[in-house]
Amino acid sequence: MFITLEGIEGSGKTSQIRHIRAFFEDLGRRCTVTREPGGTGIGEQIRAVLLDPESRDLSPGAELLLYTADRVQHAAEVIRPALTMGHVVICDRYFDATLAYQGYARGLDMALIRALHRLMLDDLTPDLTLLLDLSPDQGLARAWHQIDNGTRAGDETRFEREALKFHEKVRAGYLDLAKQAPHRYRIIDAARSEDDVRQAVRDILSAHPGLGSSDP
Amino acid sequence: MFITLEGIEGSGKTSQIRHIRAFFEDLGRRCTVTREPGGTGIGEQIRAVLLDPESRDLSPGAELLLYTADRVQHAAEVIRPALTMGHVVICDRYFDATLAYQGYARGLDMALIRALHRLMLDDLTPDLTLLLDLSPDQGLARAWHQIDNGTRAGDETRFEREALKFHEKVRAGYLDLAKQAPHRYRIIDAARSEDDVRQAVRDILSAHPGLGSSDP
Repeated sequence: MFITLEGIEGSGKTSQIRHIRAFFEDLGRRCTVTREPGGTGIGEQIRAVLLDPESRDLSPGAELLLYTADRVQHAAEVIRPALTMGHVVICDRYFDATLAYQGYARGLDMALIRALHRLMLDDLTPDLTLLLDLSPDQGLARAWHQIDNGTRAGDETRFEREALKFHEKVRAGYLDLAKQAPHRYRIIDAARSEDDVRQAVRDILSAHPGLGSSDP
Repeated sequence: MFITLEGIEGSGKTSQIRHIRAFFEDLGRRCTVTREPGGTGIGEQIRAVLLDPESRDLSPGAELLLYTADRVQHAAEVIRPALTMGHVVICDRYFDATLAYQGYARGLDMALIRALHRLMLDDLTPDLTLLLDLSPDQGLARAWHQIDNGTRAGDETRFEREALKFHEKVRAGYLDLAKQAPHRYRIIDAARSEDDVRQAVRDILSAHPGLGSSDP
């Protein structure tokens, strides 16, 4: 019972993860909610290296290895033990995020990313991936609104236009991944209200073999 | 002109690196002296994660990936640019240390370590590896003497006996690696005085095709 949520900034993953947890707990299932990068003490340290402004010179290969180190630790310390205990594991971003961001958007060799995953994670794959799909202009507007609390000036900077272009590639990447793995992926229109998205997610979970069932 | 020094703690790498630099600079060659882990700003941050006592729960796979992330960054930022500029690169530990410590001594799958190196570093290999060979009881006695300045009590702790056993495996690993790559490795008896070792290293460098020659 390994569920991942994917989507660009502002797609509403955090809220939906709260609703998914409630959905399963109402059914008497125990949940482990976690995220990448981070999710472990060591992962938080790795995350700090990744997010450090000093790390702008990080080579694409080293960045990929840091994300993978975080994931290997996360799988060993959190995901696999929780699955063994029968928990529903709900993870905010996982391997698909690496494919979408480092692969599709930054142009790192997809075969390399996949080979590293096979080599180091024994191909640990979610049972269900919920893609909260949203156009970047809507998603980034939401995310930026959260940051600046609505005080942002109207004229957009070059940085923001570049961010939009980048996130268009991420979005297209996610949609392509969903097309490649239709048995695992569900695409959810995240432009709707939080409540409508929650209902759509509930419908998917209820219909999913084994996941929505009430057996403990 | 990529030279690496390998050996257990206390084998005298630091002093010999100083002498090797002097040897090449006397010949008019420019040198880049560096080390792993570390050697770059990002590498120092990764090194801090590796050495943090909180990281004792680091999974073997995540540890391998952090060392490799450090190496990929180091190769991109320091080693390859210096080689391109025609420098002699003198590096305190490199890929063989990962094989010796994580592979031979800790039992991580050697094929996995080698596969990761091929995948992420395009198999970047030194032209010459100097193995400063020393028995761990001599090496660790030197290293510990440096730390406690000779005040250590005579009775050894369990930790120290375990450290000796561990470093026996590292030493045996290095000797095995040297046997597998005789064209690249030179084994130097590091139990001798610093001056004797320096002379042995000079003889090797002078005899090495291309390395000891005085062309700029």
